[in-house]
Amino acid sequence: MKHDRILLSHGSGGSLMHSLIRDIFLRKFNNPVLNQLADAATLALKGEAAFTTDSFVVSPLFFPGADIGKLAVCGTVNDLVMAGAVPEYLSLGIIAEEGLKIAVLEKICDSIRSSAKKAGVRIVTGDFKVVEKGACDKIFINTSGVGRITGKSRMSAQMIEPGDKVIITGEIAQHGLAVLAKRKNIDLKLNIKSDCQELASMLVPVIKKTGAVRFMRDPTRGGLATTLNEIARSSRKGILIDEKSIPVSSQVKTACDLLGIDPLYVANEGKAVLIVENKKSGRIMAMLKKHPLGKRCAVIGSVSENFKGRVILNTPVGTQRLVDMLSGEQLPRIC
Amino acid sequence: MKHDRILLSHGSGGSLMHSLIRDIFLRKFNNPVLNQLADAATLALKGEAAFTTDSFVVSPLFFPGADIGKLAVCGTVNDLVMAGAVPEYLSLGIIAEEGLKIAVLEKICDSIRSSAKKAGVRIVTGDFKVVEKGACDKIFINTSGVGRITGKSRMSAQMIEPGDKVIITGEIAQHGLAVLAKRKNIDLKLNIKSDCQELASMLVPVIKKTGAVRFMRDPTRGGLATTLNEIARSSRKGILIDEKSIPVSSQVKTACDLLGIDPLYVANEGKAVLIVENKKSGRIMAMLKKHPLGKRCAVIGSVSENFKGRVILNTPVGTQRLVDMLSGEQLPRIC
Repeated sequence: MKHDRILLSHGSGGSLMHSLIRDIFLRKFNNPVLNQLADAATLALKGEAAFTTDSFVVSPLFFPGADIGKLAVCGTVNDLVMAGAVPEYLSLGIIAEEGLKIAVLEKICDSIRSSAKKAGVRIVTGDFKVVEKGACDKIFINTSGVGRITGKSRMSAQMIEPGDKVIITGEIAQHGLAVLAKRKNIDLKLNIKSDCQELASMLVPVIKKTGAVRFMRDPTRGGLATTLNEIARSSRKGILIDEKSIPVSSQVKTACDLLGIDPLYVANEGKAVLIVENKKSGRIMAMLKKHPLGKRCAVIGSVSENFKGRVILNTPVGTQRLVDMLSGEQLPRIC
Repeated sequence: MKHDRILLSHGSGGSLMHSLIRDIFLRKFNNPVLNQLADAATLALKGEAAFTTDSFVVSPLFFPGADIGKLAVCGTVNDLVMAGAVPEYLSLGIIAEEGLKIAVLEKICDSIRSSAKKAGVRIVTGDFKVVEKGACDKIFINTSGVGRITGKSRMSAQMIEPGDKVIITGEIAQHGLAVLAKRKNIDLKLNIKSDCQELASMLVPVIKKTGAVRFMRDPTRGGLATTLNEIARSSRKGILIDEKSIPVSSQVKTACDLLGIDPLYVANEGKAVLIVENKKSGRIMAMLKKHPLGKRCAVIGSVSENFKGRVILNTPVGTQRLVDMLSGEQLPRIC
């Protein structure tokens, strides 16, 4: 590269942009579809497809456990998995601030590359825009994703039935706390890392082999509480949760106590909530526990005919409380 | 709406974001796929699909002839058409600055809605992020698109052959000048409007009915000169252009003279360059001329075995000059 920082000309459509595309994006994401440099990528798809989009504006760009690049791949991959799809193709839309160090862009692209490889997806189309210094904060990334849906993987909130079990695939609230601590420069000495991970490798086999997952959603912005409320509302069922069954690491518990935060509302980036048939919940739990990302999975509650559209928490002291959606703003730019 | 400006909480994933999604996005883009509010949309696709992405950071948001919303739909729709696809589905990823007037967001969404309707596409999935005041300039929009490719529509730069004709579908350089004049507050008294338009309705029938379009690209950032260079490079052929055959309106000519700008490098948002079989070029021109967006189409040159990878312009005074890609930055944030 002739320059060490992004110039406005890198986004002009002209020769400098073409060099950047060749020297960074084609080199790092090299695959036959992308290499065509067509206005649109051609995908080979059979049957139904899933399609999703997510923009990433996380600040800071790098934080314990992940960075904006890994997040941009995992976030979109996971949204495809939540729809019962096998993630296949990603687009990559970058908005960079004039003056961004090209070394930072390269580091982010390396992270995108390795995360995409791990999740089994290819970056097949992209766009690169540059805005003047001060018009955006360093870099924003949009990824959109296309995945393949196969027959047995159909899921929807409408399929949820009373008696179904509610499973969380692991310990909650790590991503939000890791970003918060890094941003505010709080050293909690607790070694909390973002849980940012792609969930395709763990969850696609569970969906396909058991055929017993009714619905699935990843508790990102708004945390577990907000996601459970979304599920309760769209299924028009009640969700009863046992507080003591929710997996929370001791470090996260301590950090939440110190900071006065409820872990139920803290964002996750490598967890899923599964609503599953009661009689197959044991088999599903066994499959999850065998996977490195599912070791701390837990049945945290069940679906009820009562409390339609609401989430009820059984507390350790034997009382019940209503858990609502996140109402304000806990921490902006968490993802 | 309870608020008249975007708050950070509108992007938190919680109840305020859910209200915004319901009150604006679902109301305006209402369709059965989007209304599911799933993590990913389910698309019914048969055979091959095209997939593309584009982020829009245009400044100002509103300019003569279009706005960021119309641009975000047309830009992505046109990229699908350039790949020979029938545009079907769009995603919508919005990054909004805290404090953005909700009325502005609504106006942009109205423009997205009417542009999508005109282009025959549906907004099926989306994402909404809010960043603190000062962390982005008002609003950035990413749209990704999925379209259907049918048998007869396969096109590629490798199919281009010597003797093929080069067609531009209309007058060039309007979009860039309209944005420039509005941004710099230059009143040229020339009434130049952006040409921003979806090209599916005009070009999909031409591709399908004639089967004689070898390649197609829309000359956006970098203008006609840059696009022709991209085509010359990827086809490894020469492209010979007659300067006097390039359609430029008298207003654009005057404005370019006044501002010292070469219209060949100014962005278009409603034009396409077509490389077509010589013997069917007459039929293609006749089809284009019948369409309201193609009235000023023109054959501007041809493909040659000579000057491989280069674009040569025959000037009105009988000389030839090499036309290169845009090398610097003409105007940032044109789209």
